[in-house]
Amino acid sequence: MGEQTRRVGFVGTGIMGGPMAANCIQAGFAVTVFNRTAAKTKPLADAGATVADSPAAVAAASDIVCSCVTADADVLSVVLDERTGIIAGAESGTIVVDHSTVSPGVAVQCAEALRAKGVGYLDAPISGGDVGAKAGTLSIMVGGERADFDRALPVLEAMGKTVTYCGKTGAGYTVKLCNQILGGLHLVAAAEAISLAKAAGVDLEAMLQAVCSGAAGSWILSNLGPKMVAGDDKPGFFIDYQLKDLKLATAAADKLDLPLPGAALATQLMKAASAQGHGRDGTQAIFHVIQSLAANRSD
Amino acid sequence: MGEQTRRVGFVGTGIMGGPMAANCIQAGFAVTVFNRTAAKTKPLADAGATVADSPAAVAAASDIVCSCVTADADVLSVVLDERTGIIAGAESGTIVVDHSTVSPGVAVQCAEALRAKGVGYLDAPISGGDVGAKAGTLSIMVGGERADFDRALPVLEAMGKTVTYCGKTGAGYTVKLCNQILGGLHLVAAAEAISLAKAAGVDLEAMLQAVCSGAAGSWILSNLGPKMVAGDDKPGFFIDYQLKDLKLATAAADKLDLPLPGAALATQLMKAASAQGHGRDGTQAIFHVIQSLAANRSD
Repeated sequence: MGEQTRRVGFVGTGIMGGPMAANCIQAGFAVTVFNRTAAKTKPLADAGATVADSPAAVAAASDIVCSCVTADADVLSVVLDERTGIIAGAESGTIVVDHSTVSPGVAVQCAEALRAKGVGYLDAPISGGDVGAKAGTLSIMVGGERADFDRALPVLEAMGKTVTYCGKTGAGYTVKLCNQILGGLHLVAAAEAISLAKAAGVDLEAMLQAVCSGAAGSWILSNLGPKMVAGDDKPGFFIDYQLKDLKLATAAADKLDLPLPGAALATQLMKAASAQGHGRDGTQAIFHVIQSLAANRSD
Repeated sequence: MGEQTRRVGFVGTGIMGGPMAANCIQAGFAVTVFNRTAAKTKPLADAGATVADSPAAVAAASDIVCSCVTADADVLSVVLDERTGIIAGAESGTIVVDHSTVSPGVAVQCAEALRAKGVGYLDAPISGGDVGAKAGTLSIMVGGERADFDRALPVLEAMGKTVTYCGKTGAGYTVKLCNQILGGLHLVAAAEAISLAKAAGVDLEAMLQAVCSGAAGSWILSNLGPKMVAGDDKPGFFIDYQLKDLKLATAAADKLDLPLPGAALATQLMKAASAQGHGRDGTQAIFHVIQSLAANRSD
């Protein structure tokens, strides 16, 4: 790893960002962190990280500044706030790497503002859940300048197993939204297939066994199908997060005047799951929505 | 293999039934065949099969009678025609094994009529395509009496790698329809994800590489996604067959008063693909339907 990537910053050290920052420490980087809820930085401080009091202060102490927050407005605030944002502290030559799942337009906005200061921006959302974040096996999909990607690669490789350069600024966020369209529709597919088998009185475990390894197989079916069958709603990834991501995906398609009827349907069904009280259940709880469509209602 | 399963019949020796019958010959069974278009039995006759002139004649010469035809009416005719059907030739103790993809209700109808003559019926549809049929690696999902399944198993294992007992009569057809719901929605998912990436100017191969091995992965995405990207419409499985199967799936759900919005959407999009001239293209041609939604039309 080059001299210029020894100092790594991390803004947003929650369920994903926390273990990602820990893996950077583990890999030997000098890590500075900031989190809105300061208590969440305690384990990282114990592991050797320096705690700063703003994204700007993190940036001032870092060559590569990673961030991992929730929504468009969070990224825009963390990166572009004139007083406390990364842009206020970053020197020329710094690279900002955002791991959030947000709109591709956010990448263009951040990259343009930072470029004026000689600072690079990579949109680098992640897939693999908190398990992957802890194990350092995340899939990271990256958009931005190729030269910035090459410089940030040692840091990305400390956090992920599959690091893919996807193209220009915004390509990383876009690929993550493609990922979420796939996952959303695979969830609907699993829920409907299991519902048909259940309504017909078929042995559900035999059904999963018969179809999982063939042309109808998917990661979702193999991993979440059994949870649907067992009625296990424990969250890996929240319904409300999948809903947020599907809304971003359909909004991104709308901006491109691209109709996506499947993604739109998955969004609506995910919205129903949230409305039915499953927002903080795992995404497999979409099964209850399909079941509810045929339920006898007494109201 | 028991004495009672030495003689195997095969009705319908087309693109799937032909190689399946050939694998029965290969496995050492005495095979008798019938096909509506007689020329298609020639390679099997050359390999040692006896050619009969009706399904009834096949049944009279067989302990296990397999069939592999196209639609509900074909199965009903092949099995139940009073003059030429399997029922007219089968002796008590014979087992009929139908490999077609048809309505679960067909299994109930055939099983009831045959039971009166002491003949068993298994609905045993297949997955794996002509490649799997030739290689003997099909997935076979079976409904019917467990004792009949056990007796037919040596024959099924000559044709398939994964043979799964799914439950009562009709469970095999039902599981195959679940399989087709999954495949249909996974096709829509892949087409929409690739369309969003394409419209956004993302490197499509990088996109597939980034998402295929993670939680958004599916057999369809890995195997047909690259064909969508390359514009390769060569058929593995026809759009028109997928459409037929999705219509059966939604009809089966209708009979159970089970709304399946995703399967319904996939059916409509597959119908559009057929209407747009892709009926004899591979199922990956669904990609063109999503593309056409945003195309500038001059008409």
